[in-house]
Amino acid sequence: MLRTIGMIGGSLALYQAMEVLGHAKETQFAGPPKLSGAPAGASVLVLGAGLAGMLAAFELRKAGYKVQILEYNNRPGGRNWSLYGGDTYTELGGETQKVGFAPGNYLNPGPWRIPYHHRTLLHYCKAFGVALEPFIQLNHQALVHNSKAFGGKPMPYRDLSADFEGNVAELLGKAIDNRGLDSQFSAEDQDKLKEALRTWGLLDKDMRYVKGNRSSRRRGFERPSGGGVDGSPIPSDPLPFKDVLDSGVWAVISQHMSIDHQTTMFQPVGGMGMIGKAFGKQVEGLVTFNAKVTKISQAGGAVTATYTDTATGAVKEAKADYCVCTIPLGILSQIELDASGGMLAAIAAVPYSNSVKVGLEMKTRFWEEENAIYGGISFTDRPISMISYPSGGMHSDGPGVILGAYTFGAASYKFAGMSPDERVRTVLEMGSVFHPGRYKEQFTAGASVAWSRVPYTLGCCAQWNEETREEHYQTLVAVDDRIVLAGEHASYIGCWMEGALLSSLDAVTRLHKRALEA
Amino acid sequence: MLRTIGMIGGSLALYQAMEVLGHAKETQFAGPPKLSGAPAGASVLVLGAGLAGMLAAFELRKAGYKVQILEYNNRPGGRNWSLYGGDTYTELGGETQKVGFAPGNYLNPGPWRIPYHHRTLLHYCKAFGVALEPFIQLNHQALVHNSKAFGGKPMPYRDLSADFEGNVAELLGKAIDNRGLDSQFSAEDQDKLKEALRTWGLLDKDMRYVKGNRSSRRRGFERPSGGGVDGSPIPSDPLPFKDVLDSGVWAVISQHMSIDHQTTMFQPVGGMGMIGKAFGKQVEGLVTFNAKVTKISQAGGAVTATYTDTATGAVKEAKADYCVCTIPLGILSQIELDASGGMLAAIAAVPYSNSVKVGLEMKTRFWEEENAIYGGISFTDRPISMISYPSGGMHSDGPGVILGAYTFGAASYKFAGMSPDERVRTVLEMGSVFHPGRYKEQFTAGASVAWSRVPYTLGCCAQWNEETREEHYQTLVAVDDRIVLAGEHASYIGCWMEGALLSSLDAVTRLHKRALEA
Repeated sequence: MLRTIGMIGGSLALYQAMEVLGHAKETQFAGPPKLSGAPAGASVLVLGAGLAGMLAAFELRKAGYKVQILEYNNRPGGRNWSLYGGDTYTELGGETQKVGFAPGNYLNPGPWRIPYHHRTLLHYCKAFGVALEPFIQLNHQALVHNSKAFGGKPMPYRDLSADFEGNVAELLGKAIDNRGLDSQFSAEDQDKLKEALRTWGLLDKDMRYVKGNRSSRRRGFERPSGGGVDGSPIPSDPLPFKDVLDSGVWAVISQHMSIDHQTTMFQPVGGMGMIGKAFGKQVEGLVTFNAKVTKISQAGGAVTATYTDTATGAVKEAKADYCVCTIPLGILSQIELDASGGMLAAIAAVPYSNSVKVGLEMKTRFWEEENAIYGGISFTDRPISMISYPSGGMHSDGPGVILGAYTFGAASYKFAGMSPDERVRTVLEMGSVFHPGRYKEQFTAGASVAWSRVPYTLGCCAQWNEETREEHYQTLVAVDDRIVLAGEHASYIGCWMEGALLSSLDAVTRLHKRALEA
Repeated sequence: MLRTIGMIGGSLALYQAMEVLGHAKETQFAGPPKLSGAPAGASVLVLGAGLAGMLAAFELRKAGYKVQILEYNNRPGGRNWSLYGGDTYTELGGETQKVGFAPGNYLNPGPWRIPYHHRTLLHYCKAFGVALEPFIQLNHQALVHNSKAFGGKPMPYRDLSADFEGNVAELLGKAIDNRGLDSQFSAEDQDKLKEALRTWGLLDKDMRYVKGNRSSRRRGFERPSGGGVDGSPIPSDPLPFKDVLDSGVWAVISQHMSIDHQTTMFQPVGGMGMIGKAFGKQVEGLVTFNAKVTKISQAGGAVTATYTDTATGAVKEAKADYCVCTIPLGILSQIELDASGGMLAAIAAVPYSNSVKVGLEMKTRFWEEENAIYGGISFTDRPISMISYPSGGMHSDGPGVILGAYTFGAASYKFAGMSPDERVRTVLEMGSVFHPGRYKEQFTAGASVAWSRVPYTLGCCAQWNEETREEHYQTLVAVDDRIVLAGEHASYIGCWMEGALLSSLDAVTRLHKRALEA
């Protein structure tokens, strides 16, 4: 229908129609579900006090259900978690870290940033009183390091991105002059495109990207403008385009422009774990902590979970009419579960990714005072992949925590195989490329989390692919008699808190419907 | 020398040399000046308690001078100024506005954002205890409106910028395939460039920018990803490239990438005027307010300023050995000044720009809840030129203030000619294009400042051009016997607080040298 309107009435009609039709929604979140009228005495057992589990409990209790949550950890939040100075954490394999950060400083081992279109999470953060502050993702002054470019010297994102785009504009301008676009564009449109390229790419009147005040107003000056006698600026030389290509800055730009990383992003004031804590407050009294579920059965018109109290070793049971299970699939696949063969196959089919994050506390925020870098990310082709500067507490004195590594793939398993001390040493060595002379000298304390060694997830998040989505996704999310799964693994926003929450809302809505129909 | 190294040793040597030579400094600020040893009993009269004047007073007093400041207004700060709810402001022509904003809400009539490389300002903000928070400049979710594109419907910056860059990538890819770059690039480099374009522009494997999950991950989905049964996303259609060109988004991208607008930017918590207040605290007791300078003479080895106490009408004199004059040139040119002919000619040669800013308080932050716009700027080709959403207090309930207009050139004189009420009505009408149905309905109170009608500046800031710089700049900044000028007009960072401060530091350093040589 849109196409028809478009052909008949031109763009005006098309866009008016799009507006009326509610084109381009930002989210599937349509407000909190309005569940009510739970069957008298009906109960739900929620497995896992991560965000999905706690939201399920919150909304189901509002609907009138009797709700109990079993949680493996001794805290709410699951992967929503911050490690603070003074915290202790023991990973699989037995290594224990006592975090030596100053009070208030933290590492977010799991989620660390919230996009503007994660409306569910933003809604509940506001509803539950979680204070948010901007998270700085793109920082023009941060660095890009590629061992194959510029002799291994990191260069500012600003200079590289300016030069990449300036050169692209110049080259396309030349192609137009060579009549390379005659078949696609009228002469008038080619002129419009040239004007656009000239402005966008800061080309000179001859459509060249060259040294001068014009390009320096984006890439920075050799001597910046000032006041008084020596105030006049000296422009800088663009970098050789072939080196700019080798730097891989185009991939960094692309990553920053991704919808998951666009401005405006947020983080909770005081650490991502503030969200888990705030959700925990909402379900206070409903959660049994230190409960390791070993078996889930759904016989006799009820769901029964057998669990071990990890504090005492006692084996106990919890029973309810229905169950929302948010246990990560890698763990759930190891639990005796009374579900359909399709569901069991789906649970077994989805591998989990690994990732290692390392936090490095530094004596001072030297990157702010000395490098004018406030938040954002410096990228490298070394295994640490990036370092990220704190978006909170900018301009403050005293120690700050840099995210010293956020590793993926093979590198993450290599780091997971190291001792926590070795991880920190390695990360300090690799990250020194950005801040030689300051990085190791300013270091005070480190902390690391290797997700493959996190006892309650055995990995970072679910790794679906097109084939497993096709074969297993709908089975995994379907209500299986009295059990429904929820979590980021039961969503298309994998690895994000938003996926866990939207999955949870969809799951409880369908479970409630099932209960009303029972 | 750099070129020689570059030719001989290749890029490695070049970049190592650049590092050693201190290439690409971010600022001319080298820390606060270390002035000391003022001649016994020496005194300085500072004219103007804007940032330049107060910094001059602060640093000269530290050096041992006896300092007095004369200020026209009844407050410190000059153009650094916020209008808060309850404030009263009378412009030239006699119109008085009583600002009806809720307590704490404000309009920044003058400066409103601080780039990361304005190191002088950031240094003194920290030293003087001004709390800063991020200012959001680029917001992918904000809108771009051009009456000549998309039937006059505003479109998200996100969609437009994604489609502009995607199309540019595709077109340049085609030019490569048409062998249009054979003369400049080896086949290997062309392959590298194609790989870069494919990643940067989100092209498909055939180097086309097309509808699909790949492009939607930047431009947004028709139906975004979700959780549970309906979790799978539906990709969106790229916009017609010719409309994208007509939108002028390329100019908006270019503006966002300018060094003055790159991340990370800041604003003081609670309004830009917090800076003027903090500077004011540092020079407390030194400032005579309500002092309208009418004459400046430098006879008999001293500088004498004649001024009128605007509160009482009394005519008074202030006298000192030296003078730092920060009075804006449009005002200074109307004051009897005892200076060289060259200096007087320079003062008369520089016109001032005009600008009008209008603040609109809205009942709720509907742009956050309903449009997922947090801070940033929506641009239009209407005379208001832009509207900007507040970067402070995001996610809060209650009223928020939108910058409803920031006008330049001819439009600013048109707005300056309106009554304050008429400005607000016009701006509400024009800005409604972005938020039809909400904008006027949510409006509670407005405030406006037309800089051509601001009694103490008669304009916004100095408009130098290449010719006036060449002929007058060095004369304007030179110490003229016992007087030196300072302010943004005496810098190459015109219209910015940083220019005023760097100018001030350079001026007092040279004045101190002059005093020591006397």
